[in-house]
Amino acid sequence: MNTFGQVYRLTSFGESHGAAIGGVIDGVPAGIRIDMDEVQSQLDRRRPGQSAIVTSRNEADRVRLLSGVFEGLTTGAPIGFVIENSNQHSNDYEPLRHMFRPSHADFTYQTKYGLRDHRGGGRSSARETATRVVAGAIARQALEAMGMSICAYTSQVGEIIVDKDYNSLDLSQTESNVVRCPDTAAAADMERLIREIKSQGDTVGGVVSCVIKGVPVGLGEPVFGKLQARLADAMLSINAAKGFDYGMGFAGAAMRGSQAVDIFVSENGHIATETNHSGGIQGGISNGGDIYFRVAFKPVATLLQELQTVDDSGCPAKLKVKGRHDPCVVPRAVPIVEAMAAMVLFDAVLLNRCARF
Amino acid sequence: MNTFGQVYRLTSFGESHGAAIGGVIDGVPAGIRIDMDEVQSQLDRRRPGQSAIVTSRNEADRVRLLSGVFEGLTTGAPIGFVIENSNQHSNDYEPLRHMFRPSHADFTYQTKYGLRDHRGGGRSSARETATRVVAGAIARQALEAMGMSICAYTSQVGEIIVDKDYNSLDLSQTESNVVRCPDTAAAADMERLIREIKSQGDTVGGVVSCVIKGVPVGLGEPVFGKLQARLADAMLSINAAKGFDYGMGFAGAAMRGSQAVDIFVSENGHIATETNHSGGIQGGISNGGDIYFRVAFKPVATLLQELQTVDDSGCPAKLKVKGRHDPCVVPRAVPIVEAMAAMVLFDAVLLNRCARF
Amino acid sequence: MNTFGQVYRLTSFGESHGAAIGGVIDGVPAGIRIDMDEVQSQLDRRRPGQSAIVTSRNEADRVRLLSGVFEGLTTGAPIGFVIENSNQHSNDYEPLRHMFRPSHADFTYQTKYGLRDHRGGGRSSARETATRVVAGAIARQALEAMGMSICAYTSQVGEIIVDKDYNSLDLSQTESNVVRCPDTAAAADMERLIREIKSQGDTVGGVVSCVIKGVPVGLGEPVFGKLQARLADAMLSINAAKGFDYGMGFAGAAMRGSQAVDIFVSENGHIATETNHSGGIQGGISNGGDIYFRVAFKPVATLLQELQTVDDSGCPAKLKVKGRHDPCVVPRAVPIVEAMAAMVLFDAVLLNRCARF
Amino acid sequence: MNTFGQVYRLTSFGESHGAAIGGVIDGVPAGIRIDMDEVQSQLDRRRPGQSAIVTSRNEADRVRLLSGVFEGLTTGAPIGFVIENSNQHSNDYEPLRHMFRPSHADFTYQTKYGLRDHRGGGRSSARETATRVVAGAIARQALEAMGMSICAYTSQVGEIIVDKDYNSLDLSQTESNVVRCPDTAAAADMERLIREIKSQGDTVGGVVSCVIKGVPVGLGEPVFGKLQARLADAMLSINAAKGFDYGMGFAGAAMRGSQAVDIFVSENGHIATETNHSGGIQGGISNGGDIYFRVAFKPVATLLQELQTVDDSGCPAKLKVKGRHDPCVVPRAVPIVEAMAAMVLFDAVLLNRCARF
Repeated sequence: MNTFGQVYRLTSFGESHGAAIGGVIDGVPAGIRIDMDEVQSQLDRRRPGQSAIVTSRNEADRVRLLSGVFEGLTTGAPIGFVIENSNQHSNDYEPLRHMFRPSHADFTYQTKYGLRDHRGGGRSSARETATRVVAGAIARQALEAMGMSICAYTSQVGEIIVDKDYNSLDLSQTESNVVRCPDTAAAADMERLIREIKSQGDTVGGVVSCVIKGVPVGLGEPVFGKLQARLADAMLSINAAKGFDYGMGFAGAAMRGSQAVDIFVSENGHIATETNHSGGIQGGISNGGDIYFRVAFKPVATLLQELQTVDDSGCPAKLKVKGRHDPCVVPRAVPIVEAMAAMVLFDAVLLNRCARF
Repeated sequence: MNTFGQVYRLTSFGESHGAAIGGVIDGVPAGIRIDMDEVQSQLDRRRPGQSAIVTSRNEADRVRLLSGVFEGLTTGAPIGFVIENSNQHSNDYEPLRHMFRPSHADFTYQTKYGLRDHRGGGRSSARETATRVVAGAIARQALEAMGMSICAYTSQVGEIIVDKDYNSLDLSQTESNVVRCPDTAAAADMERLIREIKSQGDTVGGVVSCVIKGVPVGLGEPVFGKLQARLADAMLSINAAKGFDYGMGFAGAAMRGSQAVDIFVSENGHIATETNHSGGIQGGISNGGDIYFRVAFKPVATLLQELQTVDDSGCPAKLKVKGRHDPCVVPRAVPIVEAMAAMVLFDAVLLNRCARF
Repeated sequence: MNTFGQVYRLTSFGESHGAAIGGVIDGVPAGIRIDMDEVQSQLDRRRPGQSAIVTSRNEADRVRLLSGVFEGLTTGAPIGFVIENSNQHSNDYEPLRHMFRPSHADFTYQTKYGLRDHRGGGRSSARETATRVVAGAIARQALEAMGMSICAYTSQVGEIIVDKDYNSLDLSQTESNVVRCPDTAAAADMERLIREIKSQGDTVGGVVSCVIKGVPVGLGEPVFGKLQARLADAMLSINAAKGFDYGMGFAGAAMRGSQAVDIFVSENGHIATETNHSGGIQGGISNGGDIYFRVAFKPVATLLQELQTVDDSGCPAKLKVKGRHDPCVVPRAVPIVEAMAAMVLFDAVLLNRCARF
Repeated sequence: MNTFGQVYRLTSFGESHGAAIGGVIDGVPAGIRIDMDEVQSQLDRRRPGQSAIVTSRNEADRVRLLSGVFEGLTTGAPIGFVIENSNQHSNDYEPLRHMFRPSHADFTYQTKYGLRDHRGGGRSSARETATRVVAGAIARQALEAMGMSICAYTSQVGEIIVDKDYNSLDLSQTESNVVRCPDTAAAADMERLIREIKSQGDTVGGVVSCVIKGVPVGLGEPVFGKLQARLADAMLSINAAKGFDYGMGFAGAAMRGSQAVDIFVSENGHIATETNHSGGIQGGISNGGDIYFRVAFKPVATLLQELQTVDDSGCPAKLKVKGRHDPCVVPRAVPIVEAMAAMVLFDAVLLNRCARF
C-alpha cells in the first residue's frame, strides 16, 4: 500500500521515469501556516546533483501544491502535489528490460506483478522519497510551531564512526559539510572515504542518527502503534535501510538493568529522567525526554562494475550499469529520515488528542 | 490502537490484573484446520513459571476460543478468545498506586490518560503478549500448511553472543534448553549468567534472532508496507524491544557494495541468490530466500533493589518492588517474536492475493 | 470485516450458537464514567423474549466487561466484553445443515466460504447486534455527558404509518408500548397488526425513525466520511435493513429547491436554520440542527409456513422452520439503530478533534 | 477523510477554484488493460456544459495519468492523476467570502475549520466527483473484463416517476437523451420539466436507479462491510444525495414476508432465485442475481433568486448568486453513481480473494 500514517497521512505515487511523482497529504488540520520556501529547501537537501559525492543526476525537484492551502494557511482539505520528472535518460535502461539487477527489486517486482516498469527502477526507485520530504516538511512546520525540533545526521560511513553522545556534538554543524556529519573531523574522513569508493565504482553503507527535542509527554500508543514501532516502520520503509534502534538500542542487549534504568527526578514539579537510556519513550509513549534513534543503511548494489546475474528467462547474463548513482546514500538519507520522523510525530500528536474524554 | 495487521488482524484487550485478556482475530480465511493443542503449546512456551530462570508467577494461560471455528475448521468469521487472569497478587501493587517506577510506563500512562490501572502495569504489562501468541499460532498453522517455517532463538544474553551464521546452527536444539539457544555450549553460559544476575536482583538484555524458511517470492509491498517495515513495526511493538535489523543489518553500514551484493543464479529455471545479505527481502518484497532478522531486548528495569524515584505529585520516593519478574526476558520473547513474524507473514500472503488482476 | 468506526471502533465476534458473542471497543478516551446498569438496560431493550410480539427465545444477554474500566472510569485501554450464549436449541437446526433457507445468508455464506456454521444462522444471526448495543451504550454515555440525546422510534409497521413530523410527537412515550412508537394510537394499531401477522406465521416490515438533538456544529468529514454516509453505512449494516434516508430524504426527489432551502437566521450571534430539510447535516457536516433519518426494514423471511427451496447439492427441497422468530423486527431494531447512531456520532466527535491546528 | 475503499482505494484532492483536482488510486492489481478513451468518455458524461439542461460552465475535464500504467497495462503501482481547473470565474465568488449560502457547506466548513476557501464552494464543490469518475472508470474496465456491467439511469425528476421494473426498460436507451432516462416518453417529460424549472431560476430533485449484472456470488462482508452498506456509504457520499435503498427498499416496509421471500430454484446445478426482492444481496453478500438500488437527490439550493441569509458575523444579509449551476443534478449524477458502484464492486472482488484459505 502507498499510504503512510493514521490521521496525518501521505498517499504517494510515481515512478522515476514516469510523467511525475507526487501525492496527497490528508488529515492536515486547518490553520497551519505553510512556508513553501522551507518545503522546497528540504527537497533541495534530498535532491540529486547537490554535491560531488552524490549522484550527478540533475533534477530540479520543484514541488507544486495543487490544493489544500488557501491564502497561506492549510484549510483542512487534502494537499495534492506533484513534482514533474525531468532529466530522464530512459534509454539508459533499455538493456535492463529483461535483466534482473542483483540486490535490486527487479526480480521481486517481476515475480509479484507479472510485469514491471524497468526504467530507473520504476516504483522501486528512491525518487519516490521526494514525496515523503514534502509531507515531512509540512508536518515539521506544524511541529516547530509547537516547539519541537528534529535533527538527523550522518553518524557512520563505512568504518568511520562518530562514537560520541549526541549531546556532545554541535548539531548546528550538520549542514556545514556535504556528508551531513556534525563532527567536522569525522566528516572530512567520511567525505574522503566516499570519494575513494566512488572512484572504485563501489559503494559504502552507513548510519543516520536522529534526535528529536521538545517532545511533549504522551505521544504514541500503548500496545500496537508504540511510538518506537511507528518510527521503525517509517525508517525501514526507506530504500536501503537495514536496521533501526532507539535509546540504548542494540547496545542494551549487553547491559544490566541496574546500568540501564532511567531514574526519575523532579524539579519544580516537572518530572524528568536523570539519564535517557529509554531514548525518550517508555511503554511506547514519549516521556518528554529527547527521542533518539539510529537507522542503518546498506551499501547499495548499483556498482559501476561488471556483475554476473540472470535475465527474466533465467539465463545467465552480464550486467554493467551506466546510470548515475550514489556511492553512499547516507548524506541524502538525512533529510528523508527527518521527514519520516516528522510525519510519525505529527501523526502521534493528532492521535493523542483522542486520549482523554 | 490495539489492532495489528491489514487483512489478518488481531485486536487485543486486557490488563494484567483485570478479569481476563483476549482478543478478536479477524480476516481469517475459511478452511484452515486448527490444532488447539498446538496453539496451547505455543502459549506454554511463553508462560511464566516454565523454568527456574523466568518469573515464578504461575499462570496457566489456558486459551478458550469463543467463535470462528466450526467442526475444527475456521469459518471466515472472526475468532474471539479469552485467557482468564489468575494467580494475581494485586495487593502487591497497592504501594505503587501513586508511584512512578523508573523505566516503566507508569509516568507516561498517567500523563497521557490522566489516570491508570496501576496493578501489575495494567495494559503496559507484557501479559498482553499472550494474545499475540494465540493469533500467531493460528497464522503459523496456515503458513506451515503452505510449507513455511519460523524459528526464532536466543542469540545473545548480556555479553554472551552466538557469533555464528544460522546456517551452521542446529535450530532443532532451540527448545532443548531453557534459554532457547540452539548453540548448547553458549546456552549453558547464558543460563549460568542469568542465574547469577537473578541472584543479584539485577536483569540483563539480549538478542533474539529469527529465520523464516520456505517463503514464496512476492510477499510485501513496494513502498510503505515493505515486508521489513512490517516486521520492524511488529517487533518494536513487543515490550522491552529496542532494535531491529534484517539481513546484513547494522553490520552493513561498514560494508562495501561489492561485498554485500547478492548475485542471482539460476538452476533449472529456479532463480535464487548465491549469498543472502538481503535477508530474503529485496525492494520490500520477499525474494524466496530465507528471511532473517534480529531483535534487541533491553534489560528490564524491574530490579529487586531499592530505587530512587518520584511519586505522582512529583515528590522524591524510594521504591522496592516485591513482584515476581524475569531476570532476562529473552527466552520468553522467543515465541513472541515467532508469533509476530507469523502474523506479519500470513497477512502479507493474503494481501499478495490482490497483486495481480 | 468485523470492525466498525475510525477512532471509536467496535470489533465484534460470535455466532448465535457458539460459546459466546462479544467484542473489543477500541479508541475509548480515558475518563468516561460508565454506568453498567444503563448498558445492561440498553441490552434489555434489544433482548428476545421481552414481550409477546417478539421472539420467545429467552436469552438473558448479560454483558461482562473484561478490561478497560478501572474504578468506574474508562482508562483509554480497549474494553473487551463477552455475552455468553444460552438457551440454544441447536438441534432445531440440524435439518438445515444442507438446506438453503430462502432470503437468508445460507447460500451466500456457503458459496463464499466453502463451509458454514448452519446453527441459527451462525455469524449471520442478528444475535451479533447485541455487541453493537454494548458499544453504542458506552458511546451514548459519552454523548449524553456532552449534551446530546438520541431517540429512535417505530414510525411504520406494514401499512400503518406515523405521518407526523417528529416535532409533533412526544418521544418520551416511545417506551410506553411494546412497539416503541410514540404515537400511542398508531402503536395500538401496529401491535394489533403484528399479532395478527404472527398468528398467520407471516412477518411484516417497517421503518425506524431517529432524531439526534444537541449535536455540535462540525461533526463529519467533507468528502468521503460525510456524516450521512457514515450513518447510512451503519444502518445498512443492520440485518434486514433495506434503506436509509435523512432530512427530506426520498421525498426531496419531488421537491423544488425553493421549497427545500433552509434559510439561515441568527439570534444573539447563534446561527441556525429556520427549517430543517437538511436533516441537520450540510456538506457532510453537522450544522447544529437536529439530525434525523429513517431506516427501512424488510419483513424477514423466517416464515412458519412450508417453503420451497434447494439444498446444497442443488436439489429441490421443502422447508418448514420450527425456530422462534420475530414477526416484525422493527421494535427490537429501535435500540440497535440508536446504538449504531451513537457509535457514528461519538466517532465523529473524536475525529473532529483533529480538524484544526 | 479523503480516501474511499479498502483495497482498491481512491484518495482525492482538489477544490473547484484551486490549481487542479486529482487523486491517487491505490490497490490496483497489475495487468488491467486501460482504455484511456473510455476513461475520458466517462468524464465527458459527467462534465458541465454537455447539454442545455446542465450548468453552462465549460470545463474540458481532461484527465492526465501520471503513474501506474506502463505500455497500456496497470503495473500494481498507484495511479496518480490530475485534472487541471480552468474556466474559473473566481471573482464571481468574492461577494460570498463572508456569506453563508443557505443549504450549502459554507457555515459548517467555516465553523469546523475556522477558515475556508469560499471560491466555488472550495472542497465542497461537486467538482470533486470528477476524480471518482476516473477511479470508477478504471474499476469498471476490470469489472467488464470479468463479465459485469453497471447501468444507472434517471428514474425520477420531480413528480415524474418511471414506475416500471428495470427489466421492462431498454437500458441501452439511457444515453439517447440528455436526461439519461431509458423510458423515452418519461425522458421527454423530464427534460421539459427541467427546462421550465431552469427558466424559473429554481431547481428540482430526482432519483437515480442502478442495475449491476453479472455479479459473482460472494462479494461483500457478513457483518460490517455488507455490500449494501458499502454501496450506501458510497452513494450518500455524493453531493446532494439524500437517500439510498436496494431491492424492495422502502417499499418493503409495507410488505409481508410471504410476499417478499425469494424462493431458490436450481437449474443444471446453478442456484438462483425466482424473484429478486433481495436486490441481489443476502446476508450482506452478493447472491449472483442482479444488484439494484436507488439513490435520491435533493433539489440543490443554488437558486437564481434572492435569498435571505446571514454572514459570518451573524448579521442578516441578502444573497443573489450569479454562478452557473444545474437546475437538476440527476442527469450528471448518473455516471457518478455508476463510478461509485464500480469502485465498491471491484473493491469487494479484491477483498473476496481472502475469503478462503
